[in-house]
Amino acid sequence: MIKTIQSVPAEAEKWGIFEVGLEGPRKGNPFADVTLQANFTHTDRGEQVGVTGFYDGDGVYRLRFMPHAEGVWAYRTSSNAESLDGIEGTFVCTPACKENHGPVRVRHTFHFAYEDGTPYIPVGTTCYAWTHQGDELEEQTLDTLSNGPFNKMRMCVFPKSYQFNTNEPVYYPYEGSPGEGWDFTRFNPTFFRHIEQKIAELGQLDIEADLILFHAYDRWGFAEMPAEADDFYLQYITARLSAYRNVWWSLANEYDLMRAKTTEDWERFAGIINSHDPYRHLLSIHNCNDFYDHSRPWVTHCSIQRVDIYRTAENTNEWREQYRKPIVIDECAYEGNIDHGWGNITGEEMVRRFWEGAIRGGYVGHGETYLHPDDILWWSKGGKLHGTSPERIGFLRCILEEGLSEGLNPLKSDWDLPCAGIPEQYYLYYFGFNRPSFRHFHMNPGVQYRVDVIDTWNMTIQELPGTFEGSFRIELPGWQYMAVRLRKA
Amino acid sequence: MIKTIQSVPAEAEKWGIFEVGLEGPRKGNPFADVTLQANFTHTDRGEQVGVTGFYDGDGVYRLRFMPHAEGVWAYRTSSNAESLDGIEGTFVCTPACKENHGPVRVRHTFHFAYEDGTPYIPVGTTCYAWTHQGDELEEQTLDTLSNGPFNKMRMCVFPKSYQFNTNEPVYYPYEGSPGEGWDFTRFNPTFFRHIEQKIAELGQLDIEADLILFHAYDRWGFAEMPAEADDFYLQYITARLSAYRNVWWSLANEYDLMRAKTTEDWERFAGIINSHDPYRHLLSIHNCNDFYDHSRPWVTHCSIQRVDIYRTAENTNEWREQYRKPIVIDECAYEGNIDHGWGNITGEEMVRRFWEGAIRGGYVGHGETYLHPDDILWWSKGGKLHGTSPERIGFLRCILEEGLSEGLNPLKSDWDLPCAGIPEQYYLYYFGFNRPSFRHFHMNPGVQYRVDVIDTWNMTIQELPGTFEGSFRIELPGWQYMAVRLRKA
Repeated sequence: MIKTIQSVPAEAEKWGIFEVGLEGPRKGNPFADVTLQANFTHTDRGEQVGVTGFYDGDGVYRLRFMPHAEGVWAYRTSSNAESLDGIEGTFVCTPACKENHGPVRVRHTFHFAYEDGTPYIPVGTTCYAWTHQGDELEEQTLDTLSNGPFNKMRMCVFPKSYQFNTNEPVYYPYEGSPGEGWDFTRFNPTFFRHIEQKIAELGQLDIEADLILFHAYDRWGFAEMPAEADDFYLQYITARLSAYRNVWWSLANEYDLMRAKTTEDWERFAGIINSHDPYRHLLSIHNCNDFYDHSRPWVTHCSIQRVDIYRTAENTNEWREQYRKPIVIDECAYEGNIDHGWGNITGEEMVRRFWEGAIRGGYVGHGETYLHPDDILWWSKGGKLHGTSPERIGFLRCILEEGLSEGLNPLKSDWDLPCAGIPEQYYLYYFGFNRPSFRHFHMNPGVQYRVDVIDTWNMTIQELPGTFEGSFRIELPGWQYMAVRLRKA
Repeated sequence: MIKTIQSVPAEAEKWGIFEVGLEGPRKGNPFADVTLQANFTHTDRGEQVGVTGFYDGDGVYRLRFMPHAEGVWAYRTSSNAESLDGIEGTFVCTPACKENHGPVRVRHTFHFAYEDGTPYIPVGTTCYAWTHQGDELEEQTLDTLSNGPFNKMRMCVFPKSYQFNTNEPVYYPYEGSPGEGWDFTRFNPTFFRHIEQKIAELGQLDIEADLILFHAYDRWGFAEMPAEADDFYLQYITARLSAYRNVWWSLANEYDLMRAKTTEDWERFAGIINSHDPYRHLLSIHNCNDFYDHSRPWVTHCSIQRVDIYRTAENTNEWREQYRKPIVIDECAYEGNIDHGWGNITGEEMVRRFWEGAIRGGYVGHGETYLHPDDILWWSKGGKLHGTSPERIGFLRCILEEGLSEGLNPLKSDWDLPCAGIPEQYYLYYFGFNRPSFRHFHMNPGVQYRVDVIDTWNMTIQELPGTFEGSFRIELPGWQYMAVRLRKA
């Protein structure tokens, strides 16, 4: 039997993708009939990683591996198809390039960092169905992202059917058609090649892909597949995508709207992902009305839709205490002007929610829903941004990035002025919709502070002359959305 | 023994004040030593009202009676002083004048009406210490009120000591001085004549006086008097002021900041007031951090300071369900620009809180705290209004007054659009900080509605042409603070 290695590189970057292409059976249903695994061993360190391969159509099978250590890795395949079994090889894992910091991990309980230790401050946006809009719009979306402040994208695998989302997708995930139905045992490799290309392009922009595996906004049947099909899909997508370092798994958007699914289903899904993703990417589940139990051990961080219309990101510190995990408020409502209350807040209110969350040690996400003559709303389809918040969100991102590398944690403070930082080193205060003309600060004596008056809306930072110690009064302009930063001199 | 009736009118208006002046003992301490009561009997109906008199200085004692029924009333005094005992007389109670609707009562569980049945929609403001500022400023305050939207004034009896409130009052309630201390058994009649004059002047402007009997902002000792002095004060003030139909009793502002008082004290105070006020004026108690138990039977309505910085008037319907009493949010924060978070919200936010409360079947109160070169902040001293909310509050008042005479009650509605009214007759929807460009309404078929699009900030009402039935779409301008009103055609 001839074993044909279609393609194999000699080296791969640390946290890059080492991919082997193999030729194998075309008969029957290769997706269902053929198994393919590989074992990767670091030849010096002895570490082993088990990887699942997948069928990519046209007789081609692929193994993707994300090495986490430099040096020589050896691999050997196993398969129930003789042509794919027992194939061996080695490759060299080279150092990561400058922009490559590895996958994002939870760090310091409430925050994130890349695997190389570089802090990662999530500044997310949402374009649920952007990969289903065709090349032109998708390129425009990527262009917009390349000029924006965002480093995380919430996006669905499956196409979306909803108000303002009536177009058919370009690709379908399964063999079949909307009229004739789908063969849930046969994936459409073109669909997956397309979405993984988009994930790779996000990666090139240093944007994490927060990939929503299931959602309810569906007219094709993907929200109500049989359990075997759900599981098969999760196995396939983890086999294809786990090696992309910028993938996060979001089990569902608004899981509680998926009436056909039970808690047992979600728990099983989490188990499948964790057993098929050898790199343990971040894994979460997002609510509509009621939180999933974020205390479940597989939930790496709380992916939250605000549950109160009025008190949104202001709940962040309570959720931190409750779950002891990072708080990511992926939906605090969207800047826009559509009919729904979740989609018509102002840019000012969006930015305020970002700050209210940040100052309490959490991370708020962006989305935009302005009416568009062709129904191209950023929140779902991408395209261009029209709102006033992204620029200010970028300003906040700069302040956070030049702030504390371990992340912002809330400090005890006055009832009307939330504060975050490290005592006697760094304090960031946020006044929100309040608009004082001045404020007294009462610090312990013995520490000199440099004081910045920050206008979070007009994006100015005024460093006050001199230093301040003990009790002092800071003049403020008497308008909304101000912050004050104290840094030890 | 000659019994001298110093003054007595032959008639008094229904819900007006019938006042008898009597000459009596000057020796000893007339405040403490002399008792004076009178029994008033309606000669036709037989109804009896017991009234307590008070010493007004210079040997003059007064009895004040507010008759609630037209016709002839007879009275007879009793006293431990012979000169005041057994005095008899009659007077004729004439019909109330057009502007006189009697005292305000709770009606329909959550709302208010004057005793003659005319609806009373509280639109309150706050000038805690306005009666302690001298004639010029007090006249300016009354002038401002006469041109404003407010029909309730929260005001303290005792002077106030606090930030921006460092001036001495013109009058003190007791004999004595700040330096030498006070004789809590001897009132200063001039003080009380002054405050009751102000209450009468408010009455002429159809403004209810929500009289705060105790408060914590004190440097003179009135917040920490002995229990006997507290009780003696309550007996004296109820004897003097109960006959003013526009008096409401507020046991305290921020009762929970008065560390020297216990629940037993407050309960005893309520008992004293109810046993000395024969007309049973409205009686409440106002919190700082924690609500008093508003379910106590003597609490006629909930006088609330919002307990959450972010979710304020939006809690109204929950409090209604909890207490089954009118909800009056006397402090939702103040429009202004001072340093404290309770005193620096925008006019927009103030008006929004008024609407959020109204649409949930409650009543929000106003206050204003703009920095002033002479520390004349409306919230405490009165003077002039500088903010943008009062005019819009007046606009809301007009809408409420031309609305439902039984008061606005919340209706079940969509999660993002609170609504009040009467099903199939009258609906008022409020969009708050949301800014839809349109909205679909889904009414039961068979009822034609006239539709008004209301801009609560710009104070415009656009009546749409024609009538609407069943499901229909209403175009909206895509900015904040809009309301929609449907009225059965």
